[in-house]
Amino acid sequence: MIGIGVIGFGYWGPNLTRNFAEIPDARLVAISDLQEERLTLAQRRHPGVETTRDFRKLIEDPRVDAVVIATPVATHYELGMQALRAGKHVLIEKPMAASSDAAARLIEEAKRRQLVLMVDHTHVHTAAVRKIEELIASHALGDIYYYDAARANLGRFQPDVNVLWDLAVHDLSIIDHVLPWKPVAVSAVGMRNVPGARESIAYLTLFFAGRLLAHIHVNWLAPIKIRKTLIGGSRRMIVFDDLESSEKVKVYDRGVILEGDPDAAGPTTITYRSGDISSPRLDPTEALQVAALDFIRCIANGTPALADGEAGLRVVRLLEASSQSLAEQGRPVEVEDSWAMVR
Amino acid sequence: MIGIGVIGFGYWGPNLTRNFAEIPDARLVAISDLQEERLTLAQRRHPGVETTRDFRKLIEDPRVDAVVIATPVATHYELGMQALRAGKHVLIEKPMAASSDAAARLIEEAKRRQLVLMVDHTHVHTAAVRKIEELIASHALGDIYYYDAARANLGRFQPDVNVLWDLAVHDLSIIDHVLPWKPVAVSAVGMRNVPGARESIAYLTLFFAGRLLAHIHVNWLAPIKIRKTLIGGSRRMIVFDDLESSEKVKVYDRGVILEGDPDAAGPTTITYRSGDISSPRLDPTEALQVAALDFIRCIANGTPALADGEAGLRVVRLLEASSQSLAEQGRPVEVEDSWAMVR
Amino acid sequence: MIGIGVIGFGYWGPNLTRNFAEIPDARLVAISDLQEERLTLAQRRHPGVETTRDFRKLIEDPRVDAVVIATPVATHYELGMQALRAGKHVLIEKPMAASSDAAARLIEEAKRRQLVLMVDHTHVHTAAVRKIEELIASHALGDIYYYDAARANLGRFQPDVNVLWDLAVHDLSIIDHVLPWKPVAVSAVGMRNVPGARESIAYLTLFFAGRLLAHIHVNWLAPIKIRKTLIGGSRRMIVFDDLESSEKVKVYDRGVILEGDPDAAGPTTITYRSGDISSPRLDPTEALQVAALDFIRCIANGTPALADGEAGLRVVRLLEASSQSLAEQGRPVEVEDSWAMVR
Amino acid sequence: MIGIGVIGFGYWGPNLTRNFAEIPDARLVAISDLQEERLTLAQRRHPGVETTRDFRKLIEDPRVDAVVIATPVATHYELGMQALRAGKHVLIEKPMAASSDAAARLIEEAKRRQLVLMVDHTHVHTAAVRKIEELIASHALGDIYYYDAARANLGRFQPDVNVLWDLAVHDLSIIDHVLPWKPVAVSAVGMRNVPGARESIAYLTLFFAGRLLAHIHVNWLAPIKIRKTLIGGSRRMIVFDDLESSEKVKVYDRGVILEGDPDAAGPTTITYRSGDISSPRLDPTEALQVAALDFIRCIANGTPALADGEAGLRVVRLLEASSQSLAEQGRPVEVEDSWAMVR
Repeated sequence: MIGIGVIGFGYWGPNLTRNFAEIPDARLVAISDLQEERLTLAQRRHPGVETTRDFRKLIEDPRVDAVVIATPVATHYELGMQALRAGKHVLIEKPMAASSDAAARLIEEAKRRQLVLMVDHTHVHTAAVRKIEELIASHALGDIYYYDAARANLGRFQPDVNVLWDLAVHDLSIIDHVLPWKPVAVSAVGMRNVPGARESIAYLTLFFAGRLLAHIHVNWLAPIKIRKTLIGGSRRMIVFDDLESSEKVKVYDRGVILEGDPDAAGPTTITYRSGDISSPRLDPTEALQVAALDFIRCIANGTPALADGEAGLRVVRLLEASSQSLAEQGRPVEVEDSWAMVR
Repeated sequence: MIGIGVIGFGYWGPNLTRNFAEIPDARLVAISDLQEERLTLAQRRHPGVETTRDFRKLIEDPRVDAVVIATPVATHYELGMQALRAGKHVLIEKPMAASSDAAARLIEEAKRRQLVLMVDHTHVHTAAVRKIEELIASHALGDIYYYDAARANLGRFQPDVNVLWDLAVHDLSIIDHVLPWKPVAVSAVGMRNVPGARESIAYLTLFFAGRLLAHIHVNWLAPIKIRKTLIGGSRRMIVFDDLESSEKVKVYDRGVILEGDPDAAGPTTITYRSGDISSPRLDPTEALQVAALDFIRCIANGTPALADGEAGLRVVRLLEASSQSLAEQGRPVEVEDSWAMVR
Repeated sequence: MIGIGVIGFGYWGPNLTRNFAEIPDARLVAISDLQEERLTLAQRRHPGVETTRDFRKLIEDPRVDAVVIATPVATHYELGMQALRAGKHVLIEKPMAASSDAAARLIEEAKRRQLVLMVDHTHVHTAAVRKIEELIASHALGDIYYYDAARANLGRFQPDVNVLWDLAVHDLSIIDHVLPWKPVAVSAVGMRNVPGARESIAYLTLFFAGRLLAHIHVNWLAPIKIRKTLIGGSRRMIVFDDLESSEKVKVYDRGVILEGDPDAAGPTTITYRSGDISSPRLDPTEALQVAALDFIRCIANGTPALADGEAGLRVVRLLEASSQSLAEQGRPVEVEDSWAMVR
Repeated sequence: MIGIGVIGFGYWGPNLTRNFAEIPDARLVAISDLQEERLTLAQRRHPGVETTRDFRKLIEDPRVDAVVIATPVATHYELGMQALRAGKHVLIEKPMAASSDAAARLIEEAKRRQLVLMVDHTHVHTAAVRKIEELIASHALGDIYYYDAARANLGRFQPDVNVLWDLAVHDLSIIDHVLPWKPVAVSAVGMRNVPGARESIAYLTLFFAGRLLAHIHVNWLAPIKIRKTLIGGSRRMIVFDDLESSEKVKVYDRGVILEGDPDAAGPTTITYRSGDISSPRLDPTEALQVAALDFIRCIANGTPALADGEAGLRVVRLLEASSQSLAEQGRPVEVEDSWAMVR
């Protein structure tokens, strides 16, 4: 039985808490939050759990084996480091840290102490993303041409981070998981539409070594909710619409046919083919439940997490490079391959 | 009665021809194309019209008052210039020319000879775009935050131009028409996914002087057809879906409410409001018919065209700047304000 | 503070319980269910509440002022009558009873004892139905031509009632609420598609005195979920799609225009008009919360419920007539106007 | 080369004419219509074809081998009979005739003279319906539970027939084609919503010998266009949406699983299964082209038409029975099996 302490009972913390509360091999021990009214709510929903405004008490509690951190990004490093130093396993909300440097230090600390360090990249645990990963890995799509994601809705404006760090982080975690290649450079543009607020709309391009391009559109100011990803391949193409209830992933047997020698001087003739469309059945288990089980399994068995610290670091590196490009109106910024050091 | 000659009876020429054939004040006189089989088709559809493989015969025909050019982009300048020099009014397919220099020279020639020079920016004649223009001009949207367009489908790959010059040209012509400001810089990224072909996917950002950002996503390799534009404003927002049959334009009474002084040091509080959605009735007249009538009206009355040569030039300038940025992975490229010279 | 006891903690009971638990003027006192494991779940979710397998203990509990009955239809009469006789106010799941006779006796008992008797016609408390009611009452639709509802999904087969009593009851409760006229006859057809089960698909027509027709399609064997209602009027028409997240109710300014004298011998000329479409903003409060508050308010103030016993009786009468018609392949069956007696 | 004469150049005649004009083995000879302006339009579109207001001249024209009849229903019998008596093959618009008696006599006349008699049941020639027919015939759906069709839009009101004879005829022709069983009885309800006009909304149920039910909803007064059919089977289910551009037919691997002995006294346990969804690629050839080719092929080879006179008769019988039931508020009416005589 692994004892769980949760720091942060704001927007996402209650969801994490509820999922850990339902796992047989975990025991919810304590919840910490700075606001008294959130602790009252926590007690109402989880009678018997210890609540405190002082996160240190939670971290030092000997019944707590693992700490779940669901606080603003700026605090992730400090809370994560203290928990690791107290010998606790750690699950951190995404993005993992406010800088790649901080993320790398968390990884080192966890490695030194042989503790589990996992990032809550929830989407990689969804049935839809697992199916997409499987389709790409099995070469069902052929060569990948592009990955195009749009994530938009009205609000919720974040005071401390812009729309890239708030929304694009989801898509970056998916891309990091399903594509077998890593980006070499990024270009990002965006706008601070609302006076006094950070960028509320942004477009991020990821360049890879080959003929693949990835692009993410994120928007806090859209009149409608959009969660749509297109993935184009030479053999098949995917439309992943997370708002669809029963056909989230559609696989299109469509593409172009090249005739003639592409390396020859003369022009290639291009025709099109259009075959069947299929929508695979997806496991309806809640993704956060799968994530919570993975964390518990890693602690129990010492196996690596699907979304480990290095995945978190890779995503933070892309966000950092994006911020730099954003400040220079889309000038391309190379992504250092320096996480290799960490391994 | 204005005599019309059409050069180019390939993909779009037959549509232009059919629309001019139905206008009472115009008379279809001659059609020119390099391929004999296209001329056979032209004669079958328009019995009695003169057909020729030599465009010079058409331009020199004294019964031809105006020449409609629907040929590949590379030929627009040469054909347009010859027609103007022969004293004919000219309507050119978009993009107007392969370079802004060529476009500017066509404008000068038409001005010197007092001839009508119009570009077939078909979309600006649609009821949907006219309604959007009206909503923006009347300040119904408030401050414009962003203009986000996506135009995708499978094919049709063009041998001579990339996807920006083929598809983004539509959105640039709409943006040029409905937004009262002009872009100051662009950033474009794209990819030559298919060996032997030009860029089949591209993303283009337009920077303006204020808090507005415009972005265009174009794609020849999408499994589904997309024609969707979002326009965000401080008072209302628009979703324009050109594939919808009866609700192409939807106006959302949604937005953010700022509380506190945005110029003060302290943070602004942002809340959201969500009101009614409405979809205005749109005139079902075919846009190309409206365009053809506008061309005839300009010739008859000497009034300026809705999509005149300068609109064509502005769009070509943006395409040129985009090509430059595309070659440098999104490095921002300023758009010269030099069309002011022409005026 | 009104004490609430809930009988039946199966599929719907937990939703009712949760809503009453959140109302300040109500206090959740006791929950009764025949299955021990449901009571365990009830205790986990509502610590401190009394649970029992014997509903009599709940009814006799002096702290219980009002009883909420969420059990199979066959038990509604017996449980409702015992609760009323014990002097408790009663809220019964729909359909109110298995026969109109039983429903009428419950009404009489409640009236005699001056107790509140309410039926959980949840839909009449939704913002969408309240908006439709308002549009019809204000004559915004003009003359009502038809009401056409479709409610379909895969499952959940009921062992004790057919698809009419399970699904059409929702639409009948809405029709009863929003239309100012009462049906005079019904025609129903259906099929027992699955061996050993009751009718899983059915079509029910309601005839009214005038030119109005209502029709309900219900289906337990549909591959997709459908919750769609069309309401046609001479001035405007409504599409109500309960699966839409943000545009549940759309109002179409469309219709026919009659020219010539309809009473004359000669034919009338019919043309069509097509105006704007609008989608009113709807209050997002959960309908069951509104229903629970209405029940508490009725008890506190002695005011009549929006969905009182007579509404429940009217719906049961229609279901009875439907069952009769269903057994005779659609033969029309008149609906007795006998609830007038009750009033 | 088969000479074609077309009687009736109103709404549908031009489509039939255009398709016959494009068939290599057919030659368009003459067009007849009562209105001079329709003949002018016919000449404009088909220069060189003979036009006449007197259909007798067309029928007697020795160059005319086959007559296509696209006139109001009331005239089908008279025109068809005269054409057959003049020794011409005949293709008649649906519904084939205003009465089953008239339809049967046309069949007899054609049989006696060994002429082709075909009905324009266009839908049975669409790729979507051919795919559905194939899925049913191959038992891919298992036992068929129901066939549910909805066909609605605003207008076009017909002066001579009601909405059943105008719209339901399409669905009846599809049902007749794809289901291997014939209905034994019908129940129909409807309403004359608009003063001076025939029934503008109607619901038609078809009863079969087994556990199958078919239902058709037709509506001239709907604010939106609907062309949607659900077909439920024990193994798979179909959603056929004719307004979808690329996914008209979707096959759902969904259904119920019966456990226990359905013939036993005890209740059957029902669970649900939900598998993949697929959308087969469909041939994009225009259905009317396929129909025209079938007619020509039948004349040339003496083979039977896919939609022969007997298919036309069966559909007319169902319409007659429906009209009778409609007049009696849904009273079930048996369908005579008398077309067996004809064979």
